[in-house]
Amino acid sequence: MQAFAPDAIRALVFDVFGTVVDWRSSIVREGKALTAAKGLEVDWPGFADAWRAGYRPAMERASRDVDAWANIDVLHREILDELLPRFGLERLSDAERAHLNRVWHRLDPWPDSVAGLRRLKKRFVIATLSNGNVALLVDMAKHARLPWDCVLSGELVRRYKPDPEVYRMAARLLDVDVTETLMVAAHPSDLRGAQRAGLRTAYVPRPLERGPNPDGTPPPDALADDAFDIVAADFNDLARRLGA
Amino acid sequence: MQAFAPDAIRALVFDVFGTVVDWRSSIVREGKALTAAKGLEVDWPGFADAWRAGYRPAMERASRDVDAWANIDVLHREILDELLPRFGLERLSDAERAHLNRVWHRLDPWPDSVAGLRRLKKRFVIATLSNGNVALLVDMAKHARLPWDCVLSGELVRRYKPDPEVYRMAARLLDVDVTETLMVAAHPSDLRGAQRAGLRTAYVPRPLERGPNPDGTPPPDALADDAFDIVAADFNDLARRLGA
Repeated sequence: MQAFAPDAIRALVFDVFGTVVDWRSSIVREGKALTAAKGLEVDWPGFADAWRAGYRPAMERASRDVDAWANIDVLHREILDELLPRFGLERLSDAERAHLNRVWHRLDPWPDSVAGLRRLKKRFVIATLSNGNVALLVDMAKHARLPWDCVLSGELVRRYKPDPEVYRMAARLLDVDVTETLMVAAHPSDLRGAQRAGLRTAYVPRPLERGPNPDGTPPPDALADDAFDIVAADFNDLARRLGA
Repeated sequence: MQAFAPDAIRALVFDVFGTVVDWRSSIVREGKALTAAKGLEVDWPGFADAWRAGYRPAMERASRDVDAWANIDVLHREILDELLPRFGLERLSDAERAHLNRVWHRLDPWPDSVAGLRRLKKRFVIATLSNGNVALLVDMAKHARLPWDCVLSGELVRRYKPDPEVYRMAARLLDVDVTETLMVAAHPSDLRGAQRAGLRTAYVPRPLERGPNPDGTPPPDALADDAFDIVAADFNDLARRLGA
């Protein structure tokens, strides 16, 4: 692989859940408001973690059969309906379930996300490249004021990352070479998928994605510097490293 | 069809060439600058009209065979290469041709477009629904500061409007019903295609799209009021009629 040259990059594509938005705190906040109004006590951090934990296996099931492919709104709802009885919430109405399921459309950004994206947008094309469906990403962008140039999703090819076709689709639609495309993510597995498809990579660890570490151990270290083209502390740092 | 109720609308999808941007003036301006620098005189209004006139037959050829489908950047270039000798421009270099072909990425908006879209965006999801390819629409949005929530294109399904699948794709990806989707266009043929797919329609005539009328006749009248759900003078008027 050639040495990394920031000047060769034309488009940045971003993982969203965990990288741009803080799904866990957002779900906990909305969940607490929902059940406080009903006088219920629910372990919402545990709920959020269990909901998110169901996501990868659900995508893997959906990926086995292109004809049976379902989008994330559908998968989130299937997981939600399984989880509610485990958390004493089996009495939620269908309307309440539908509303709660769409909390993923209303996630809040990390503190640096909007300012960093605005700065990056002046120099680069910035797009989502998420397993979240297009409607979810559009709603989230309106809610969180995320200034995307373009909303791209695995939904457009009915596949999920880390399928290489998802990364290639992004470069193809943006009319850039994969080597001119920088995948930005908080998750090494996503970045390794992007590397296999030929993209360049920026790792932005989000140590609070799964909440404060209960036993006081520090978050996992950033991976060795040479695993990815850039390691940045947040999106402002990423902009600085890219000269934006 | 049910009576039109603005409150039932959730998403607005826009034709772009001619409806949002003024392709003819933009091409004439860039073309004149190009040939003035070379000391050449070229009929740029005629050139722009001929380029645009090649667009519909080229799309129809591309639509006959999904495997041979080509995007608008490719079709524009094919037409351009045919036209250059007719206008005395056969000596343009490949780099000059490539740059000129991308004038379609740098078109300027009508005077009301940005302000109207900003106003509509506060209340509705606003997306392109263009036969222009995604990269073209993304570049144009950056150039013209068009505040799209989402960039949708026939390219996503390798078809061209007025194929009904293009309109249905937009509603599906935005997770709205076709009856909750308003197609906005300056061209009745596009709006009729949207109607056939079940969308609601807003006609915004752009009487200057093909330039000032040389013989002084007025632009074609707006169609009968009952042909489309809304007839608006421009995007600000559209926002007003939709209560945005």
